[in-house]
Amino acid sequence: MIHFDTDYMAGAHPQIMERLLETNLEMTAGYGSDDYTRSAKALIKEACGLTEGEVYFLVGGTQTNATVIDGLLAHHEGVMAAETGHINVHESGAIEASGHKVLTLPSHEGKVCAEEVSHYISQFYADDTYEHMVAPGMLYISQPTEYGTLYSLRELESLHEVCRQADIPLYIDGARLGYALGSEQADFTLPQLAQCCEVFYIGGTKVGALFGEAVVVTRKGLLPHFFPLIKQHGALLAKGRLLGIQFETLFTDQLYTRIGAHAVRLALKFKQAFIDKGYELYIDSPTNQQFFRLENKKMDELMQHATFEMWGPRGETHTVVRLGTSWATREEDVDALIALL
Amino acid sequence: MIHFDTDYMAGAHPQIMERLLETNLEMTAGYGSDDYTRSAKALIKEACGLTEGEVYFLVGGTQTNATVIDGLLAHHEGVMAAETGHINVHESGAIEASGHKVLTLPSHEGKVCAEEVSHYISQFYADDTYEHMVAPGMLYISQPTEYGTLYSLRELESLHEVCRQADIPLYIDGARLGYALGSEQADFTLPQLAQCCEVFYIGGTKVGALFGEAVVVTRKGLLPHFFPLIKQHGALLAKGRLLGIQFETLFTDQLYTRIGAHAVRLALKFKQAFIDKGYELYIDSPTNQQFFRLENKKMDELMQHATFEMWGPRGETHTVVRLGTSWATREEDVDALIALL
Amino acid sequence: MIHFDTDYMAGAHPQIMERLLETNLEMTAGYGSDDYTRSAKALIKEACGLTEGEVYFLVGGTQTNATVIDGLLAHHEGVMAAETGHINVHESGAIEASGHKVLTLPSHEGKVCAEEVSHYISQFYADDTYEHMVAPGMLYISQPTEYGTLYSLRELESLHEVCRQADIPLYIDGARLGYALGSEQADFTLPQLAQCCEVFYIGGTKVGALFGEAVVVTRKGLLPHFFPLIKQHGALLAKGRLLGIQFETLFTDQLYTRIGAHAVRLALKFKQAFIDKGYELYIDSPTNQQFFRLENKKMDELMQHATFEMWGPRGETHTVVRLGTSWATREEDVDALIALL
Amino acid sequence: MIHFDTDYMAGAHPQIMERLLETNLEMTAGYGSDDYTRSAKALIKEACGLTEGEVYFLVGGTQTNATVIDGLLAHHEGVMAAETGHINVHESGAIEASGHKVLTLPSHEGKVCAEEVSHYISQFYADDTYEHMVAPGMLYISQPTEYGTLYSLRELESLHEVCRQADIPLYIDGARLGYALGSEQADFTLPQLAQCCEVFYIGGTKVGALFGEAVVVTRKGLLPHFFPLIKQHGALLAKGRLLGIQFETLFTDQLYTRIGAHAVRLALKFKQAFIDKGYELYIDSPTNQQFFRLENKKMDELMQHATFEMWGPRGETHTVVRLGTSWATREEDVDALIALL
Repeated sequence: MIHFDTDYMAGAHPQIMERLLETNLEMTAGYGSDDYTRSAKALIKEACGLTEGEVYFLVGGTQTNATVIDGLLAHHEGVMAAETGHINVHESGAIEASGHKVLTLPSHEGKVCAEEVSHYISQFYADDTYEHMVAPGMLYISQPTEYGTLYSLRELESLHEVCRQADIPLYIDGARLGYALGSEQADFTLPQLAQCCEVFYIGGTKVGALFGEAVVVTRKGLLPHFFPLIKQHGALLAKGRLLGIQFETLFTDQLYTRIGAHAVRLALKFKQAFIDKGYELYIDSPTNQQFFRLENKKMDELMQHATFEMWGPRGETHTVVRLGTSWATREEDVDALIALL
Repeated sequence: MIHFDTDYMAGAHPQIMERLLETNLEMTAGYGSDDYTRSAKALIKEACGLTEGEVYFLVGGTQTNATVIDGLLAHHEGVMAAETGHINVHESGAIEASGHKVLTLPSHEGKVCAEEVSHYISQFYADDTYEHMVAPGMLYISQPTEYGTLYSLRELESLHEVCRQADIPLYIDGARLGYALGSEQADFTLPQLAQCCEVFYIGGTKVGALFGEAVVVTRKGLLPHFFPLIKQHGALLAKGRLLGIQFETLFTDQLYTRIGAHAVRLALKFKQAFIDKGYELYIDSPTNQQFFRLENKKMDELMQHATFEMWGPRGETHTVVRLGTSWATREEDVDALIALL
Repeated sequence: MIHFDTDYMAGAHPQIMERLLETNLEMTAGYGSDDYTRSAKALIKEACGLTEGEVYFLVGGTQTNATVIDGLLAHHEGVMAAETGHINVHESGAIEASGHKVLTLPSHEGKVCAEEVSHYISQFYADDTYEHMVAPGMLYISQPTEYGTLYSLRELESLHEVCRQADIPLYIDGARLGYALGSEQADFTLPQLAQCCEVFYIGGTKVGALFGEAVVVTRKGLLPHFFPLIKQHGALLAKGRLLGIQFETLFTDQLYTRIGAHAVRLALKFKQAFIDKGYELYIDSPTNQQFFRLENKKMDELMQHATFEMWGPRGETHTVVRLGTSWATREEDVDALIALL
Repeated sequence: MIHFDTDYMAGAHPQIMERLLETNLEMTAGYGSDDYTRSAKALIKEACGLTEGEVYFLVGGTQTNATVIDGLLAHHEGVMAAETGHINVHESGAIEASGHKVLTLPSHEGKVCAEEVSHYISQFYADDTYEHMVAPGMLYISQPTEYGTLYSLRELESLHEVCRQADIPLYIDGARLGYALGSEQADFTLPQLAQCCEVFYIGGTKVGALFGEAVVVTRKGLLPHFFPLIKQHGALLAKGRLLGIQFETLFTDQLYTRIGAHAVRLALKFKQAFIDKGYELYIDSPTNQQFFRLENKKMDELMQHATFEMWGPRGETHTVVRLGTSWATREEDVDALIALL
């Protein structure tokens, strides 16, 4: 059986495991006050071209989104997001459990469009009853999106400009950011991304770490008292250095981007094969997640030899499926998959 | 100036004021443990044809929705509602502030459709990842809707059947229920409505009371420990008898329905005049709220003599407006409005 | 039967009822945007000696506390209060339901002491692990307290000084403020009280209104976006003018203070009689609530002729009871009570 | 420098690291649906002598407490705990952030006493106003406590009996349960502990794992829909097998208890030395955490050679300190510490 379910099926990249092992017996202070964590923060700020700002490490994506959004919003505000956004669909209501409404915008293959964001905000304030409604207090986007698609630099800049004019923060969920950075179609660098938002997070769980997400606050004071908020959200790791060591490794010798590039290359390889054999793309994704609309018969057949996910409920005759790659995907498995088509 | 902004512009129906005055000097125990409250509850249960069940009195609509929904949902559940539903639009995020997500369904002139509710639920459970999503834990509808439209008895029964099959409660927001009961187009009685749902509320604020909403729980045990929840939501009135006295009055000699009928008759009168003069209906409402799409020039002209609400932002050339009536609307004011057209 | 249970047993002061009746048929805009509300706010600011600041009207005490505290605290902060404070005991967890911890301080007959507040804050920040604990983000006191006792001006100033040094707001729950202002033992004026805190509320429900509390924000910007927060907490009254009219009446010709003085005079009258007849004071209160520790036999006897409250559970041989007066208490009833002793 | 700050300063027990390494390249499904997790659950149920019930794995202690307590409480209920309980002191308000009040009981060296719990509950319901107060909905205790002390089996049984009579669950925070099981003073077994409560958790983070806590629900149906609640609380690990593998290792060949015994033996060794040299015990703890009250001069001196924690703020002349051991503590370091005394 070969596996393409998703990018968090294996453990950690071997270099990370090696470092965890090397440092295992050391005794360090808890909660991220150790030197590994300090070093990882410095490496990330450097990679992002930031001289000010802050970096925080949390454990998982849903928890990171819930904590950051809780930190950025005032009570009367909600978070704008594509209706397909992870926070609106697949977080079991974590945002609402913290008291905040997700204000949905149309999804264009997972992306929101600057004009529609701008229109939403201006229509909101044009309504005399707006104080009875939830104010758009921030914008959430994911890069890449839940559908594997990418915002171009120009799109990011436009969204950021809209947010700036409305005086609200732009927050980027980078759970799979490595697969954006590793995609040839990406026309932005990490420092450019950092300039286009107030806060973003660099996903580790899905890009080679055992777990862990690095929240980057691009300017001072945007998330005051964030440490106790992390604790309050249950997102503070006692052995905080585990996060420091992992991100230190990921941001040494560009391992993070290299992991992304490897996975994207393999995903695009089988994508091309699907296309060549006449299968239907559901979304044209340039990153490590690929979506196809398969005849049920073919899908069932493939599932005898490979694991992957149905994307939503099984359809009557056709079903949308998702196949993903990671640092752990082997070329021979991709070839085996292609042979099954 | 004549006023058609909404149905909560005047004080209370004179009979209510009279009763409040008559009883003003009496001393009674607080928090609804008085005889007036007991009597009002009995009258309401009788009017609803209920032998079991409970009645609770709260102060306002948003607070009632937030408290009931909080009481009915488990943590992992959200409330389904039309995207135009009051809880989704005009409650400043009160539902989310209590930790619950509003799961939106398409709105058909303010109404949801049983097939779409059923489809939503079945698609939800057909998705393998459903435990990562917010489960549809109840259905919220408003009768009449925010657009003045009505569910027929058959539609209510269909919705209830869908809910029953999914084993979730149906909750009806009756903020303006009197205007449904007072509409000739309504094909249901109050007891029939009570049979079609688990919980509903009978709105007082917008139907002749100074304030107050009566929550009707149609069967025992559906909302356990609701009293402390009301208190926790800040919805418990110290001088609880004020609610008892008002609802006792409203449910004596069918005052509640008579108020509704008066307002609806006057609303339909000017609606017909708008139609006759060639104005465009935005929605075909059979109740006390009427919606028209007016040329801005005409709207501005009318606003010199009458007050009413823009429904959403002012449009470029045309704007949707809402005009409402209440127990306090006078026939001569309606005639004056018609003369302005 | 004569009634001394509490101060919210009757309706409203007759002058309020009269004004509500006189204005009943007028049509005004909703949610407090009417002229009565504007006028009431101006009268209250004048009575408080405030030139800047804001006044907001809410419906009840628990709701007011929950909304104000939610507005003043950041996520990582809690509210310090006497362990006997209303928010800690009798609000069914409304503060925690909004996500905030009540940090308890020792109660000295219902009051907190400036030295202990100061000590609490300094010990908090002296603890290296303080970011894992809930920061003292504001101080809540009630004036008079839940035991009828009063803070002197000097005590208020000391508490305010401690708060100022810690850069946190002081919030005063004035549910029964009229009975402080009406007590001869009070050595402060309303403007002096307003100078001693950031936010306080002037209770209407327990001091002559049907319901209603006036939140006074003593300086601009202390509670930004408070209007949608009121709505979100379900505390926004649709017919907002009802609050405006009531407080306009209470703050005309010093009715508010006169109500307080009347009730306090009668309470002190029976208090003296209890003392003279050898009954045991539980607390020495100078306001409208009096607390005695009675033999159960005597208590049961009195309860045949008068209603009043047990303060906590019935004891084995003695029980603490509370007797209260209001604008509606008649001198003849106090004399009848005294005759029973 | 030698380290006695706490028990989460090193990585994981070598056997755990070895297993993580061995399995690192395997591909398994996410979120705990893998075979390692299934196996770990079975081992834990067996070790607990449970045939029914459920086991869930979460990442950290605060998050576990917040999620379990949120799952067990109804809205109107709070959680009783010693005033020194971790949930009341060191979780940055995580319980309140989920909407629940912590109801504090006196702490007896970290423990609550059955009589006082029983008294609290009976006094609560003896108060006529109890529906205005937060009901005691569950009992939280920690074993060992935050002060290293242990409940005897008899004490646990008494507490459980009190809870059973009140029909509320008893929940045991076992963040350091291994150090109870590894203490000779413990007079209970794991199956006996499981019989004494409804839910408890077996701490991994502080007892040899990189991170992870195993929630044991001792009977079916006590925590319905707990999986989405874990997700909602941000406590669901994507690579769930990491928890399975760690706990599988800990519950093979009694590694968990052996780790505890090792640490306790070393802690008691230096404890005896402190006593022998005339130092003052702050608490008489039989587990891996030891508390002394040191002269500041001596404390400062020791801190030149060893790291440990001040327990609360530095005192004027003396300060309470905490020293802890873990699986990673070496005998030679303990001897070095003793030599410093």
